[in-house]
Formats: sequence, structure tokens, C-alpha cells
Amino acid sequence: MIEPPQPQPQPQPLPHEPPELPELPAWQIAQWFNTDRALQLADLRGRIVLIHAFQMLCPGCVAHGLPLASKVHESFARDEVEVIGLHCVFEHHDAMQPHALRAFIQEYRLRFPIGVDLPSADGAIPRTMASWNLQGTPSTLVLDRSGRLRLHHFGAVDELRLGALIGRLEAQR
Amino acid sequence: MIEPPQPQPQPQPLPHEPPELPELPAWQIAQWFNTDRALQLADLRGRIVLIHAFQMLCPGCVAHGLPLASKVHESFARDEVEVIGLHCVFEHHDAMQPHALRAFIQEYRLRFPIGVDLPSADGAIPRTMASWNLQGTPSTLVLDRSGRLRLHHFGAVDELRLGALIGRLEAQR
Amino acid sequence: MIEPPQPQPQPQPLPHEPPELPELPAWQIAQWFNTDRALQLADLRGRIVLIHAFQMLCPGCVAHGLPLASKVHESFARDEVEVIGLHCVFEHHDAMQPHALRAFIQEYRLRFPIGVDLPSADGAIPRTMASWNLQGTPSTLVLDRSGRLRLHHFGAVDELRLGALIGRLEAQR
Amino acid sequence: MIEPPQPQPQPQPLPHEPPELPELPAWQIAQWFNTDRALQLADLRGRIVLIHAFQMLCPGCVAHGLPLASKVHESFARDEVEVIGLHCVFEHHDAMQPHALRAFIQEYRLRFPIGVDLPSADGAIPRTMASWNLQGTPSTLVLDRSGRLRLHHFGAVDELRLGALIGRLEAQR
Repeated sequence: MIEPPQPQPQPQPLPHEPPELPELPAWQIAQWFNTDRALQLADLRGRIVLIHAFQMLCPGCVAHGLPLASKVHESFARDEVEVIGLHCVFEHHDAMQPHALRAFIQEYRLRFPIGVDLPSADGAIPRTMASWNLQGTPSTLVLDRSGRLRLHHFGAVDELRLGALIGRLEAQR
Repeated sequence: MIEPPQPQPQPQPLPHEPPELPELPAWQIAQWFNTDRALQLADLRGRIVLIHAFQMLCPGCVAHGLPLASKVHESFARDEVEVIGLHCVFEHHDAMQPHALRAFIQEYRLRFPIGVDLPSADGAIPRTMASWNLQGTPSTLVLDRSGRLRLHHFGAVDELRLGALIGRLEAQR
Repeated sequence: MIEPPQPQPQPQPLPHEPPELPELPAWQIAQWFNTDRALQLADLRGRIVLIHAFQMLCPGCVAHGLPLASKVHESFARDEVEVIGLHCVFEHHDAMQPHALRAFIQEYRLRFPIGVDLPSADGAIPRTMASWNLQGTPSTLVLDRSGRLRLHHFGAVDELRLGALIGRLEAQR
Repeated sequence: MIEPPQPQPQPQPLPHEPPELPELPAWQIAQWFNTDRALQLADLRGRIVLIHAFQMLCPGCVAHGLPLASKVHESFARDEVEVIGLHCVFEHHDAMQPHALRAFIQEYRLRFPIGVDLPSADGAIPRTMASWNLQGTPSTLVLDRSGRLRLHHFGAVDELRLGALIGRLEAQR
């Protein structure tokens, strides 16, 4: 004699902040979009860096990951927080070549720099994805001003918690 | 001293039901997905037919049009309402070839039959899109059991009104 | 090595259309809002009638039921489809008296007629709710032009299926 | 010959962080819910405090403000971030008395402490609302660990930016 039950709010785990704070190996990029010059992780020291690893035909990336990456890109000063897209194609390679990504970027009005993860010579997994041990797409990585890895997350990222992580890193100088 | 103003509900126009009820020319399809055999509009007489014209890299199609088409496909008996996708590529042709559409259909788990609109020999607009005078994507067309056109709409379709149209056509025998 | 799994679309049950098509007993209303005169079900013959049974402090009613009732109210001609709210208070009686409902109706900008279900002399369940055997709130009832009950649903109502039901009933004259 | 235009992303203003960082006067509370003892702002020094000023019949509070306040309450350790609700009734006073608020808190499963702003002897605006110069509901205030006001916002609060503010304040010790 009451409305249908609603799910109880569940405490959500805090985003994983790796205890060892390793440095990421350099990315290996075949081609860049939305930037005039090749970017290097090392050049971004002093800023917080959010790397969004996606595939253009990944529904979770299109519905959640890329909109949140764009929102971070628009919400913080560029010299504070840098957003970088990493297109790491590990399936349907024929359908997600750079010329198709160019159309996707235009249609979805993505504004942040996006690098194409360098294909492997002998396997489906591109090189940066392999060296960073990414489990799939969408994956989100956050680095602090010193280049240390502070988030390495596969799947949807909670907006409030991501904001809090960025805020904590902003305050660290 | 009150909460911020909210938009007043606006009466929405009823979906356009063409007064002349023309018959659609036959579609011209280069390739089919999700069906064992080539489909013809004429073979679907006796059923209500919803045709969703889309492009795989059209954000409005991915966010709204295709989910609603899938919902119609799942919500009605197959011998009552048939949903047909029409992939009418009029831009970024290189990025939306049939092999890419195949990956898209798999990733987005589309279940209804989808035909590739036959490319034109001398222009960007494919043949069915041109002969049906579609203005862009997403476009939604609904035909009654007699094959007469009852909805020809460019843009987002309201779910409640689409349901009501289908219900009215279901009742007409 | 793929995006996190997504739920498969499940066929949803069609809304229950009672096979016996009983007539509803008359409602018993203590007070009306949004109408100049007391309404009777019998006066609405010839129109489709959607009755939304709600409580102003029921979260599911506020989030889903009332917005959909308002949308039906705005989407169809008034002489075709009539929407009636029924405020059937069966808990927290002190908090949901008619003066509070008046404030709620104003704040939520509800436009359709709303009747207060007559309290019982000796129990929590008001009289119409009891005689109609409503299981809780939100509940949605739909009557055809002849006053026969075609939907008697407790919980959230699917918008597409509700539209289709209304459309089928519109076509029956 | 393209999908209907979509709004361009607009840079949003950063939440107002008052430059003067004033201290808030003490709140004046008639009655508490969800706490065994009367709370004082002074007792919360050392923690970040988010105060959500709402009315139970304010649609924007129910749809956006209270869910975000609950999410903050569930997302951070209690000894880091404290969420306090302030029920400041300035309209429809008869409909939002404490006994009605009790039912609302139960139905909406609010877990954080909520104080009823002390009514004024001679006006519609309750005392804390007046002394804090709140413009309406929902309003959100955030105080740092020292009790200084860092956000004083009327209307909807952006989740990402609120997270970033909390994160920055978490890092300040």
C-alpha cells in the first residue's frame, strides 16, 4: 500500500587513486586532431591532465565518456586542466580509421586535442593502450601537475567525484 | 523571492499527417543487414511500417532516433508493426560505408532490418533519400496498413504522439 | 577488452487491458481543483479518460506519473482525451490536506482537474481508492469512450505504450 | 541537408566564490531532523560544510537540489564534508509545517541533518534566510574548514564544479 520500492542509495567506491603514483610511459600517436602540433605528456607538466581513451563506435564513450570529457574541457582554465582524447582502436579497425574519426569529431563537435593511438604491427591492441594496460573503452586517466597518475579507471566516471579529484589536484602546487 | 522560473508547457504541434496520403516510391537499397532477404515495401502491406532514416555518425540519430526506433521494434508484435532502418549517407561518405555500418549495428545492438540507401551516381544524396524528399537525418516515416504515408517528419519525434499515431493505425483494418 | 556490458533490451509486457472491461464505480470526491464544477465520470462519456491517482508526497508520482499525466493533458484535444487527477491520501494524512495540495498544484503548475478522494470514516484508505481496489500510488486508469476500463496499472507507465493505447481508443467510435 | 542544429557548448561561469570570505551568522533553528542533538555551525569547524536551503514544495529543490545534496552526503567521508539541510519556508507556510516536512524526509529518504529555519514573528521570511540574505530556494552555501563562506549560490548547481570546489577545500588544511 505504498509506491513501488526505490533503490537505496549505495555508497560508491572512491575512484581508484593508485598508491604507487607511477609515471605513465609516453603515448605513441599516429596522428593528431584539434591541435597544430604534436603534444607530449612531458610538455604538459604543471597542469592537471585528463586523458579520455575512447573508440568512436563505443556506445558508452559516446553517451557518457566524451560528454564528460568535453564538460571538463569547458569548465576549467586551459592552463590549469588539459583534456586529451586518445582514440585507441582495438576492434572494428576498418570502421574507425583516422578519416572516419575526423568526421566523428566534426559531427560531435569535440574541441579538445585527440591523438590516434599508434596501431600495433602484429596485434589488435594499439601501442599506447598496451603499454598503459588499458582494459577497454571508455577509460579515464588523470595525472597531477607532476605527471603522476592519480586515476586509472575503466568504465563510467562519476561527475561529482571526478570534480573533487580535479579540485584536490588543483590545490596541490 | 521564489525559485528560478521554469518554462511553461507549450502545446506541441501534432505530427504532420499528410492530407494527400501519397504512396511512397519503392526504396532503392544497395545492401541489407538484419534480414536474410531483400525487403520490399509492397511485401509489408497489412502491417504498419515505421521507417527510420539515419546516418551512423549523426548525433541526433544516435541519441534519440535509433533508441526510439528500437523501442518501437520491441514494443509491438512483429506482424503488426514493422520497423525498417534506412542508412541514407549524404555526407562523410568515406566514413559511413557498409562495413562501418556493420560494426555500428553490432555495437549499438540494433535488431531491426536496415537497408543501405543506394548511392547516387552523380551527387551526395542517395537515391531513396532524394526520391522521398527527405530533408536530413533523423527522419521518421510511418505508413499505414495500406501503404499510405501518415507521418513524414524531420527531427526528433515525440514518443507519446508517435505511440498514439501507431495506436490509431493499429485500430484501422 | 570491450566496453562494459550493457543490458539487453527486454520485451516489456503490454499494459494490462482487463478482459472483462468492467465499469468503474463513481468516484467520491471531497473537493475539486482546476475546475469550476464537480465532475462526474458519467459526464465524460464519449471521451477517453485518463485518471492519475497520486499523492503529493509520493516521489514516483512527482518524478514520473504527474509529468506524464500533464503531457497527455497537453498533447490531445480536450474533447478527445480528458485527464483527471485523483489525490488519494492513504498515509501521512496530516501532511497532505487540501490546503497543502492547493500549494502543490500551484508550484508544480498542474492544469488538469484534480479531485480529492473522500477520506474514509474509519480507515487510512480513502473511499474511491478502496472501491477501485487501487494498490498504491502512482496508479493510472484509462477508460474508453464508453466508460469501460481499459488500463488499471500500478507503478510507472511506459510513454510509448500509453500513447498506443490512447491512439487505439481514439480510433474506436 | 544536415541534422537539426544543436546548441553550442557555452563556457559556464565558475561558481561565485565571495572575495571577502565572510563568516556566516549562526543559524536559528526551530527543530532538527536526522540528528540527535542541535547542531551549531561552530561545532563543524575543521570540516567542509555544504548547506542546502530548500522548501519541500519547491520543484527545483526536489528535482535537482536535494538529489545533489544527498549525493554529496554519500560521496565523502563524514568527518571531511558535512551536509546540512535548511528548510526555509517563505511561502505556503501552512503546507510546509514540520510535521509535513517529517513525512517528506521519510518519503524522499533524506539522510542528512535538516533544520527548520525559525519563523519570523512578523513576516514571511524565516530568520536564517533573512540574516543570510538568501534569494530563494534552492540555495547552496559551502563553507571551508575555517567556516569562511566559499559559495553562496541561488539556483541549480553544476555537479562537476561543485565537486571541484569541494576538492579544492579538502586540500586546504
